[in-house]
Amino acid sequence: MPVSAPRLADIAPFHVMELLGRARELEAQGRDIIHMEVGEPDFPTPEPILAAAREFLQDGRVFYTPALGLPELREAISGFYRQRYGIAVPASRIAITAGASGALTLALACLAAPGSEWLLTDPGYPCNRHFVRAFEGVPVSIPVGAASNFQPTRLDLEQHWNERTAGALFASPANPTGTMLDAAELADIADFVRQRQGQLIIDEIYHGLTYNGDAPTALAAGDDIFVVQSFSKYFQMTGWRLGWLVIPEPFVRDVEKLAQNLFISASTPAQHAALAAFQPETIALLEQRRTEFKARRDYLAPALEAIGFRITAQPEGAFYLYADCSALTDDSFGFARRLLEEAGVAITPGIDFGNHGASSHVRFAYTNAQARLAEGVERIRQLLA
Amino acid sequence: MPVSAPRLADIAPFHVMELLGRARELEAQGRDIIHMEVGEPDFPTPEPILAAAREFLQDGRVFYTPALGLPELREAISGFYRQRYGIAVPASRIAITAGASGALTLALACLAAPGSEWLLTDPGYPCNRHFVRAFEGVPVSIPVGAASNFQPTRLDLEQHWNERTAGALFASPANPTGTMLDAAELADIADFVRQRQGQLIIDEIYHGLTYNGDAPTALAAGDDIFVVQSFSKYFQMTGWRLGWLVIPEPFVRDVEKLAQNLFISASTPAQHAALAAFQPETIALLEQRRTEFKARRDYLAPALEAIGFRITAQPEGAFYLYADCSALTDDSFGFARRLLEEAGVAITPGIDFGNHGASSHVRFAYTNAQARLAEGVERIRQLLA
Repeated sequence: MPVSAPRLADIAPFHVMELLGRARELEAQGRDIIHMEVGEPDFPTPEPILAAAREFLQDGRVFYTPALGLPELREAISGFYRQRYGIAVPASRIAITAGASGALTLALACLAAPGSEWLLTDPGYPCNRHFVRAFEGVPVSIPVGAASNFQPTRLDLEQHWNERTAGALFASPANPTGTMLDAAELADIADFVRQRQGQLIIDEIYHGLTYNGDAPTALAAGDDIFVVQSFSKYFQMTGWRLGWLVIPEPFVRDVEKLAQNLFISASTPAQHAALAAFQPETIALLEQRRTEFKARRDYLAPALEAIGFRITAQPEGAFYLYADCSALTDDSFGFARRLLEEAGVAITPGIDFGNHGASSHVRFAYTNAQARLAEGVERIRQLLA
Repeated sequence: MPVSAPRLADIAPFHVMELLGRARELEAQGRDIIHMEVGEPDFPTPEPILAAAREFLQDGRVFYTPALGLPELREAISGFYRQRYGIAVPASRIAITAGASGALTLALACLAAPGSEWLLTDPGYPCNRHFVRAFEGVPVSIPVGAASNFQPTRLDLEQHWNERTAGALFASPANPTGTMLDAAELADIADFVRQRQGQLIIDEIYHGLTYNGDAPTALAAGDDIFVVQSFSKYFQMTGWRLGWLVIPEPFVRDVEKLAQNLFISASTPAQHAALAAFQPETIALLEQRRTEFKARRDYLAPALEAIGFRITAQPEGAFYLYADCSALTDDSFGFARRLLEEAGVAITPGIDFGNHGASSHVRFAYTNAQARLAEGVERIRQLLA
């Protein structure tokens, strides 16, 4: 009997999916479940983006685009970097992809030689290690904790870099912690990786969803860095599956070959819809929603601390709180299951983000109205009482 | 300086893209170019599919779907297999993907162990060998020609199979030839691969676009075969990027893990739009268009033979004619360039589909109105006169 390739033994499912499946079962039985596990904004796609999609669909001519994307969308993103960050990123270095997932595919398919080691953080976005593994690279975890605000330091890099290390993939703001690297830290990391002849990839998909000021882009630290971005989070277009990859010039041709062969092109309706993402009225709406996310964070963090969780990170962005639950349990997975079964509150256990401290942490997503978050906190308080 | 992974040296660009870029330049200069190179239907998305998309977009709730796709779309595809082929394929074995490209990604990421050999045809769809290579498998070409109607035979398999061979990936109807495997041939190939403990993958993306009767599905030859399908060709939804993969039961869980990690999910608007793809009024429209494609083929094949090309394959499906141009040139790439520059006719040189006989073949796509095809033929006739 044929069997799956060896890599499959190293590719984990999302454990939260198991909890989500159970949550759906309970809902089907009539239970009210408060969802604080979902990693996508709860807001609908902004109306100007929907209007652009509807207009594009009028004549039904929904054909392939060039492999790297609609030229006008690549230009619009270039303009966004100029306007928001004051940085020149030529459209020729921007590839439009099916979500950040497509961007990670292109980056790792291009860069990950078999056996090459890639430094990631633990905890971190779980798919990152699987993208590395899918292309036969070797993901190497850097355990990060509250002492470094759950971000890697130069010292971490020095300790984990060896002759097999090809590069590093970090996120700012990060999932599940919402913590950021500041401009100096980014530059320091970029400098170190450059000195070691390595390749740096930075995930910036939560840019725009930051609540103590804007996040600096790694692109300011050099044009030799791959940057992964998305229309899913700040632009709130999850289901459209659209993102982009900023490519260092020497790799543009190779990334284009990969995009031609692996994707043909990204969704055409999504690309035309996204042309409206940078309009002033869209940005104004997104900024209102950013304010709403900030209010939720500012409510939820102290509310969780009041019932026994500890937020040891500085959650400056994304829509997550990574909470230390060690005062309440030493088994975060069982704890999450108990919250769901007994309190009807769905959260994500630490195991979904790695192994380091996983059993003593859970992730709360504030992708739900504040009243629902408050109801969730109250239910947990009663359960723990 | 960091460099691309070694696999990039083996991943070729689409050569036709170079010609297409030149065609666009010529058009920008005011030249009229007849496009017979494009591998996508020229028809707009059927109106019922557009209407379903517009209705779905009303409230803007465009969120992720489950990783394997909308349950109701998976059920609809299962129903399509039951109705059109009389075959039971449970929805649980169907994964919705971003085009057939996404299905090929899942299949090869799941199956291709590093160093494992995969048998493909030459000529064939060029991306296939790159999907194998991307996941560190080794693509092995079976040269196929007119004697076997450009399809592999059991004898070919016997001659190319060795202890490193893990499986085979073939297409019926095939690109660039439009030739098919009949039910007995499919069963014979499936039987051989099964005996050798290998895995068979069949690309059926041109099903529905066949002109001498329907194509048999490989699923009739066993439930242990991966089948790649697409909404792009028969359903004419190229730019939506939607397809599916039929998965043998033992691999469903691994494919689901890969889909969760590599994609999150396929385009949600596209999935809701595709729910209308199986409605009787959509099918009626698609069958009209199938008749139009047949008329184009029946016009174009003899018209090309009348001016010196030879159609040695039996083009029963897809929208391509693979033409032997050896009576006209021994350099099909230069010939294609000359046709573009001097006659304003864009076609695809054989090199895009492999090496076997590439310099003596070109591909004509009949994805253009018959009057335009006739104009193209007349221009070529005058150039060759």
